[in-house]
Amino acid sequence: MKEKLTVIKVGGKIVEDNASLNALLDDFAKIKGKKVLVHGGGRSATKIAERLGIETKMVEGRRITDDAMLEVVTMVYGGLVNKNIVAGLQARGINALGVTGADLNLILSDKRIVAATDYGWVGDVKTANDSELANLVGRDIVPVFAPLTHDGKGHILNTNADTIAAETAKAAAKHFDVTLIYCFEKEGVLADENNDNSIIPSINEEKYSELKATGIVAGGMIPKLDNAFSTVKAGVCLVRITKATNIADSSKGTVISL
Amino acid sequence: MKEKLTVIKVGGKIVEDNASLNALLDDFAKIKGKKVLVHGGGRSATKIAERLGIETKMVEGRRITDDAMLEVVTMVYGGLVNKNIVAGLQARGINALGVTGADLNLILSDKRIVAATDYGWVGDVKTANDSELANLVGRDIVPVFAPLTHDGKGHILNTNADTIAAETAKAAAKHFDVTLIYCFEKEGVLADENNDNSIIPSINEEKYSELKATGIVAGGMIPKLDNAFSTVKAGVCLVRITKATNIADSSKGTVISL
Repeated sequence: MKEKLTVIKVGGKIVEDNASLNALLDDFAKIKGKKVLVHGGGRSATKIAERLGIETKMVEGRRITDDAMLEVVTMVYGGLVNKNIVAGLQARGINALGVTGADLNLILSDKRIVAATDYGWVGDVKTANDSELANLVGRDIVPVFAPLTHDGKGHILNTNADTIAAETAKAAAKHFDVTLIYCFEKEGVLADENNDNSIIPSINEEKYSELKATGIVAGGMIPKLDNAFSTVKAGVCLVRITKATNIADSSKGTVISL
Repeated sequence: MKEKLTVIKVGGKIVEDNASLNALLDDFAKIKGKKVLVHGGGRSATKIAERLGIETKMVEGRRITDDAMLEVVTMVYGGLVNKNIVAGLQARGINALGVTGADLNLILSDKRIVAATDYGWVGDVKTANDSELANLVGRDIVPVFAPLTHDGKGHILNTNADTIAAETAKAAAKHFDVTLIYCFEKEGVLADENNDNSIIPSINEEKYSELKATGIVAGGMIPKLDNAFSTVKAGVCLVRITKATNIADSSKGTVISL
């Protein structure tokens, strides 16, 4: 029986505001056992870029990362957002270590090949270093991942935080019983998107087919759930989609499992 | 007999320019055995601050760090400068880990007490975590320190890079035979400041008294050497003051020892 490990991915909206960040860190501190935090920071990057006179260009929700934007995300994700979280966790007695994929060669990526769109310095994850991750976590260190990786040739690459969370969870699954939690504005996956009380408590593959066939799950929720299923198929025990304020309460949100 | 460890402090001028940074990382890679890198980044911080419309105020060469400037140094030192160095070292096969004093609680500081000047979010080092440092270095990890610490209450503090290098070297001296190298624009301590060939190869306490008495060492060099002597008195084997391009050549520069 492997030890439990929880990977929590929290979006920029929560970590970029002091009040919601502090509430999140309080909740994160309550989660028992070994844990990893993965954060975003896109809103801060966009704000800082604007103040620096650098235009933010997005294609299908993804940031085009030219030289100037790479400097911005390296500063904002790896420095500003990451180090504030680390200091906040240390103040709560959690031995946090802020990292990017370059640190300890934790996540190696390939620069995305230019197809219809040139995303610039954007990385698609090649390998997550499961043994180094297990080393850190085994020493009761809590890694805090900024959404940055490297190409092994000296370049930092901008990498989607959801992907970092999924790849980290999959790598950790070689050593631990992993739960992956995605924080979200809503209570979970809803049967009726206008009714916060219509949470679907759990979805397995059979139920997922049914929900798609009846049109209850549609649009932007489909890629999210497809990703969640690919993660559990790769060895992660379960994925929970829940509200940030509910991360410490395992009875809340929607559980995705095989 | 303890194992050898080299702590190298390199100023902003070198790490902020791509060509000199790459040359430095090549030289750093050549240094045998266990090592730690401590970097500055003041010039980049001043530039980014200017672009953000934030005024840089210095008192006796030290940066006043108000809320806005703390954001800038956290971004620039902890993110931009630090992560580029880490990616560059990983590309050279060095297992670098970029850290601030908040990460793994490596360096705890006290916010400087307001006296004649309010320096703002500036930290004076209280304790450097020698056992965590020894753990990392013992695993052949190369810590790369940004000049930031924390107060243990959730705040990042701006801390002088020379001080971080000295405190890290002193803490490491409990476990290793430590050499501390300060990089410098000049070849070393010069007998004639206008003659680059007049390097004083070594200075012990007796020689230092003599150099001060005869006025050969004066001005800004006195606090530098005072610091070097306080470091060797605290257990560091020797301090070498040398040119950045000579860090891998132990026959160059000026050696300070008891």
